[in-house]
Amino acid sequence: MGSLQYLIVVFKYGSRQPWVMVSDSSAPDERHLIELRREFHRYPEPAWREFRTTARIVEELERIGVDEIHVGPDAIEPTARLGVPDEDERSQWFDRAQSRTDRSDVLEALEGGNTGAVAVVNRGEGPTVGLRVDIDALPIEESTDGSHPPAREGFRSEIDGTMHACGHDAHITFGLGTLETVLESDFSGTFKVFFQPAEEVLGGGKPMAAGPHVEDVDALLGVHIGLGHPTGEVVAGVDEALAFSKLHVEFEGESAHAGLAPNQGRNAVQALVAAAGNMYAIPRHGEGNTRVNLGNLRSDNASNVVADRASADAEVRGETTAQMEYMRESAVRVLNSAAEMHDCTVETSLVGQAPREDGDEDVVDLVAAIADGSEAVSSTVRRGSLGASEDFTHLLQAVKAGGGTGAFVGIGTDHPTGHHTSTFDVDEESLSIGVDVLSRAVLELLE
Amino acid sequence: MGSLQYLIVVFKYGSRQPWVMVSDSSAPDERHLIELRREFHRYPEPAWREFRTTARIVEELERIGVDEIHVGPDAIEPTARLGVPDEDERSQWFDRAQSRTDRSDVLEALEGGNTGAVAVVNRGEGPTVGLRVDIDALPIEESTDGSHPPAREGFRSEIDGTMHACGHDAHITFGLGTLETVLESDFSGTFKVFFQPAEEVLGGGKPMAAGPHVEDVDALLGVHIGLGHPTGEVVAGVDEALAFSKLHVEFEGESAHAGLAPNQGRNAVQALVAAAGNMYAIPRHGEGNTRVNLGNLRSDNASNVVADRASADAEVRGETTAQMEYMRESAVRVLNSAAEMHDCTVETSLVGQAPREDGDEDVVDLVAAIADGSEAVSSTVRRGSLGASEDFTHLLQAVKAGGGTGAFVGIGTDHPTGHHTSTFDVDEESLSIGVDVLSRAVLELLE
Amino acid sequence: MGSLQYLIVVFKYGSRQPWVMVSDSSAPDERHLIELRREFHRYPEPAWREFRTTARIVEELERIGVDEIHVGPDAIEPTARLGVPDEDERSQWFDRAQSRTDRSDVLEALEGGNTGAVAVVNRGEGPTVGLRVDIDALPIEESTDGSHPPAREGFRSEIDGTMHACGHDAHITFGLGTLETVLESDFSGTFKVFFQPAEEVLGGGKPMAAGPHVEDVDALLGVHIGLGHPTGEVVAGVDEALAFSKLHVEFEGESAHAGLAPNQGRNAVQALVAAAGNMYAIPRHGEGNTRVNLGNLRSDNASNVVADRASADAEVRGETTAQMEYMRESAVRVLNSAAEMHDCTVETSLVGQAPREDGDEDVVDLVAAIADGSEAVSSTVRRGSLGASEDFTHLLQAVKAGGGTGAFVGIGTDHPTGHHTSTFDVDEESLSIGVDVLSRAVLELLE
Amino acid sequence: MGSLQYLIVVFKYGSRQPWVMVSDSSAPDERHLIELRREFHRYPEPAWREFRTTARIVEELERIGVDEIHVGPDAIEPTARLGVPDEDERSQWFDRAQSRTDRSDVLEALEGGNTGAVAVVNRGEGPTVGLRVDIDALPIEESTDGSHPPAREGFRSEIDGTMHACGHDAHITFGLGTLETVLESDFSGTFKVFFQPAEEVLGGGKPMAAGPHVEDVDALLGVHIGLGHPTGEVVAGVDEALAFSKLHVEFEGESAHAGLAPNQGRNAVQALVAAAGNMYAIPRHGEGNTRVNLGNLRSDNASNVVADRASADAEVRGETTAQMEYMRESAVRVLNSAAEMHDCTVETSLVGQAPREDGDEDVVDLVAAIADGSEAVSSTVRRGSLGASEDFTHLLQAVKAGGGTGAFVGIGTDHPTGHHTSTFDVDEESLSIGVDVLSRAVLELLE
Repeated sequence: MGSLQYLIVVFKYGSRQPWVMVSDSSAPDERHLIELRREFHRYPEPAWREFRTTARIVEELERIGVDEIHVGPDAIEPTARLGVPDEDERSQWFDRAQSRTDRSDVLEALEGGNTGAVAVVNRGEGPTVGLRVDIDALPIEESTDGSHPPAREGFRSEIDGTMHACGHDAHITFGLGTLETVLESDFSGTFKVFFQPAEEVLGGGKPMAAGPHVEDVDALLGVHIGLGHPTGEVVAGVDEALAFSKLHVEFEGESAHAGLAPNQGRNAVQALVAAAGNMYAIPRHGEGNTRVNLGNLRSDNASNVVADRASADAEVRGETTAQMEYMRESAVRVLNSAAEMHDCTVETSLVGQAPREDGDEDVVDLVAAIADGSEAVSSTVRRGSLGASEDFTHLLQAVKAGGGTGAFVGIGTDHPTGHHTSTFDVDEESLSIGVDVLSRAVLELLE
Repeated sequence: MGSLQYLIVVFKYGSRQPWVMVSDSSAPDERHLIELRREFHRYPEPAWREFRTTARIVEELERIGVDEIHVGPDAIEPTARLGVPDEDERSQWFDRAQSRTDRSDVLEALEGGNTGAVAVVNRGEGPTVGLRVDIDALPIEESTDGSHPPAREGFRSEIDGTMHACGHDAHITFGLGTLETVLESDFSGTFKVFFQPAEEVLGGGKPMAAGPHVEDVDALLGVHIGLGHPTGEVVAGVDEALAFSKLHVEFEGESAHAGLAPNQGRNAVQALVAAAGNMYAIPRHGEGNTRVNLGNLRSDNASNVVADRASADAEVRGETTAQMEYMRESAVRVLNSAAEMHDCTVETSLVGQAPREDGDEDVVDLVAAIADGSEAVSSTVRRGSLGASEDFTHLLQAVKAGGGTGAFVGIGTDHPTGHHTSTFDVDEESLSIGVDVLSRAVLELLE
Repeated sequence: MGSLQYLIVVFKYGSRQPWVMVSDSSAPDERHLIELRREFHRYPEPAWREFRTTARIVEELERIGVDEIHVGPDAIEPTARLGVPDEDERSQWFDRAQSRTDRSDVLEALEGGNTGAVAVVNRGEGPTVGLRVDIDALPIEESTDGSHPPAREGFRSEIDGTMHACGHDAHITFGLGTLETVLESDFSGTFKVFFQPAEEVLGGGKPMAAGPHVEDVDALLGVHIGLGHPTGEVVAGVDEALAFSKLHVEFEGESAHAGLAPNQGRNAVQALVAAAGNMYAIPRHGEGNTRVNLGNLRSDNASNVVADRASADAEVRGETTAQMEYMRESAVRVLNSAAEMHDCTVETSLVGQAPREDGDEDVVDLVAAIADGSEAVSSTVRRGSLGASEDFTHLLQAVKAGGGTGAFVGIGTDHPTGHHTSTFDVDEESLSIGVDVLSRAVLELLE
Repeated sequence: MGSLQYLIVVFKYGSRQPWVMVSDSSAPDERHLIELRREFHRYPEPAWREFRTTARIVEELERIGVDEIHVGPDAIEPTARLGVPDEDERSQWFDRAQSRTDRSDVLEALEGGNTGAVAVVNRGEGPTVGLRVDIDALPIEESTDGSHPPAREGFRSEIDGTMHACGHDAHITFGLGTLETVLESDFSGTFKVFFQPAEEVLGGGKPMAAGPHVEDVDALLGVHIGLGHPTGEVVAGVDEALAFSKLHVEFEGESAHAGLAPNQGRNAVQALVAAAGNMYAIPRHGEGNTRVNLGNLRSDNASNVVADRASADAEVRGETTAQMEYMRESAVRVLNSAAEMHDCTVETSLVGQAPREDGDEDVVDLVAAIADGSEAVSSTVRRGSLGASEDFTHLLQAVKAGGGTGAFVGIGTDHPTGHHTSTFDVDEESLSIGVDVLSRAVLELLE
């Protein structure tokens, strides 16, 4: 595709004055990147329900032209999935997706919630380089405020209560844009793009890492937009993701009338409460910082009935995988004994997980050098700290286990409010910056 | 209305053989009682939403012919109501009622959820006698099993998730039937029937007691069906209702990312958990048995967010009002300090309440004598223990404060499963037994 | 022994004016009763350490002249003892006793802490009647205040930190006085007096009940002074002793530096704290009032060390033995699971116990009739409620199991302050009242 | 003093073979250092009770000859002391000290527990350099095992239950030895040695920093022996001491009989237990690792009494002073609200404290260079991490506040078991190594 010029009008944050941008970049041009991002923004789908999203990615991959497109169980290992919603919930999103795509062939392959895709381009002998982007959205109601660009510009989420509030719409765009750009160059080797589902619940990294396409990767890049870095800044290695486990917890006791015979009940609320209080009190780890939190507490019985059921989600983190595992083992012990304490039972299921895995020095150096040499990049940070968790670490761990290398790259963007808020948005100028840095890094790694 | 004969077919529990009953009683005949009960059973409405129920009661009162019918703020003191649902919830039930009654005049009087009614018959000089029946239903999904008579006979609840599972449909029938029967006799004095809303949440007794019609009552009867007593058994005085208070509790803290900055949050889940654990641990009272229980726990934040909100219902009881108040004061102290402990705030609102108030010896004697003398009654229990709570005690307390007297009468009925279960049902033969005993007792108290 | 007259000067409470009493009763005269009580008051010994006390009782029994005196394993079943202190503690008291009695023969029989005695008088055919009195003192420092009669009159405790603050000095006196009085009458049958150790820890009732002398008793009386009843009042049956169990609890974890490696510890304080919080929260029993309390908490580690040991005493009670056992089983479950919760272990040992066992109607009637007929008794209460716990119930239970009967008699006394306080004292006038009522009751039961 | 040769026999750990050392160093010769250390080892005194220790230090200072010796309120600011024991305790140690020294003049100056000393040498114009050593011992019973050198060699602690188990005996020796060595050289400026009391409770650093001698110091060295580093290793800067606060906590409620009237009590055990459980659960800090621990729990009431008193020590730490203060403020909030929760009161007193304060780069460089250049030093570590807490940081903070600089130097020693154990011991060869490194560093800083 030749070089074209488009006139793109973008509103900068904090100003109602349009910013006029003249695009002169090569394909994929900025306009297409922005269009893609906005389209994905309009149709957000949460973890393991990215049906329309995956179908749309497949269409773009077909347009771009790649050697292999893998979806469903060909892309991920279904049995390794964590945090998969129940069938009712999945069906609802599946049905909705059917009304929004013609690609029922793709949807069929995704049935049961095996969302996500892997694109592969083979160009003969050479290293195998991978780029992982995540594709799921969040259960957040997007702002309708006129100062929120998606609302003002007409690409606000069309699905009530769901929103791309963490920038995964931009990540998909990075994946497609980088692929298209890399394909315009000559290289020898293999390039794979991993469109990973269910990152927000830290449930998709493990099945993708366990799938058939990660193990042979020699160098893997991941990418995240924003994270407090402004447009034009690039972080060569975003590290120190906290190792993470999330448990869904269901206590079961026995109900009884709270006035007539409280002693005949087995109180699931008391069990939950004892567990929660003591989980926060798991001893700190001498070697690093840990985390524990509970959310989503539920107990449906009226107060005149001793509760026979109570549930919650609990998550633990650690600076290292070992510290997180110390927390998880302690948490499970607390949960089990709290159930026993109040004569109840508890079922604990792992619904999300990510290890700690930092980027390699050589890859970070390579990305930092590219960023330093890029005109679009105004500032390069060599190493950054994520602080939160990311299941890219599952893929990076698998790659390293196979002798490979990798890093998690941050692409700065001015974002008016924090990630996971109803007014989160990205500066679309950063889309082409990301594609530029990532595609150069991929090409260099392919050498 | 003259005495008629009807052939009524009733299925007894435990048998699919119809039981053929030839009615020869005077008005209200048994068939009408059964029809009334079944009609109310089909349209259950929960606390402060008894719109259609009240309208239908008014229609029956008009048919029977009474001197005064009071509804809305003329029947109860609106400001004393407890446990009133929010406007959205009330509107939904108000609209549903509009489609099921022509009496929009009545509905208008009930707006804002001032449900319930008081019927008054004046027959010159003499004492004022009252009968209180409660009219609200429960948030329970009624069984569809063929062995459940309402399902089999076609009068199962027509409102999903709501059910007369405690016999208040029979109580309304007792009220109307007793009124009609009493009116067939000559008496001098005043007879009032109180159709009280919101007993299940113990929220309607206080406003009805505070209303304009209770204070001058000289003798008050309340009535409850079942309670484990078989058909044909009557309990002259059901006493020892536990004094009761119910609190709705909302903790508010501040959210923060559970991975990045847990210290920046103020954790409402920790506050709730500390409160719950310590509320169960409020010291036992040396002078009598107390109760405490929590239900309906809710915290919506995902586990990766420090919860900024958490809520629950909490109830306390005591063998005496003073013991219950000791528990409530302790509970409120625990709630407030648990909030402070985790730097949160808490709002506590009283949503249900009932004191302890036992029946008077003289009235119990009178009812016991009537039961002993009744052919329909096979067994009389002089004093029974409720064990649970009842806000009839508010009315009885008000009557006693004015120098009056009263008792809470139990009318036995074979019930296949316990109160507040999805297969609760009453033996309809007990309807006429109840009307018989109550109307005789009222007439005797009027002398 | 003939009737003598003594002039005894007693100071009444609230007055520094001596009250002059002219004694004209038959043996044992009041003066001797007062002297006995004062002597025992001066040498208080706590549970399982009543060495000098037992020796002195034996001396008195020898003076009175009985057929059999049983001490040591001949009096109680050593293996059933609860709450026995360790050998160091026992030796200390044993040595002290040796310096205060010449009866090393008796002391030898008590070695290992098998304190207490049983006196038996056989007078041919007839029923076997028993009287049980308890003999141990409390770990309370007696007041030195001049308004406290024992301090003023010179019979204050001579053993620092130990005091007869519950009236067991009077109880021993009742036992000896009643025995002496009964022996002055003719009767046919057997009379036994049980001088039971370790009542304050509820540890002596069980071994005495399991010993060789209780099973064949046909009628058993127990006695307690005071309990809020004034001098001259007698309670024929003090009932409703709460069933009781006391556990000593030792948590063991593993220490670690609280700064360097808290995760390497297993925190016994956390285990204790989780257990304590949840033991108070054991659900109330629907059928009766229960109790739970913890005391004597200990954890010796400095705060910069994760505690490897923590201990406490925990007690539970119930209106019935079954309710108490519900509490104990729940408490043990909580203790075990709290230990597991914090990766610790716990050892739980039963150190005190008493069932609920009320007096029989016939014996209560008999005692009430005697009290009514006694000039010394100004007021008779038929049934009283103890509220606290008593291990007399172990003996009564054993007697009933063998077909016998019994009651626990209360002898009123003006006591200036409550039982178990440093200024507790009895009105010595009540000593002869008690002996009078008890000896008459014993004689009547022997008929 | 000229250079002498001594033959010193030392037993190395793990060997009963004597190690023969020929000393050829200048004064203070190694023999004297070892003698000093052994003498201080024999008379350990805990925090604020270092009476004999201070008197002995003064004697040595007089022998060495310094310009000023400050003790008592001339050395420290008495009002800033933390963790001072009560007068009974202090008197006991004061009296013991009187029997072990002739220097009643010194003891008098220390009355009230104002222990510690400051030595000052003025040599004209020039910088002021300080060396701080700590002098208190621990409440640990020293091992009597023959394999424990102090027991074998006859210098085991002569004070039961107290032991120099952290090496402060060596620290005092470092202070005296360094002073004597420095004085043998020519220098211009001022040299001060701070003999600080009460480091083990982190109670002496603050009053010494607040005293009159620290503020004008230009360069301050602290020193610690051992910490896991072997003999011959020197750590130029031991940093990352956790900021620390320790609270003594006393809950007061009201006692009541646990059987008769638990509701009339105000349960201090419940308050303590609620506080403890929730203190461990104070949210982790997002920016660094924190600590919390409780020890020394006490509640004396028997289990049949609702506890009116309960006490504990609680400590918190943080990687930064701000994080520690977050923990302390949270802990105090939890303590206050737990008291209120159970209707009790709580008194919280600060009994120990230390901020975080790391060494300066330039001083660390200087010490590292000296260590590298020393023949006695086999290994130099530039920066080490303490992990635990140290109140040297108070002095360093004060020096820095005045524009000065400083570092905390680690002198390795083979120690057979960990610090704070009953068999802790130091390799006495390290005494002269420490004096060598410290005196060279002091002299260089004086230039």
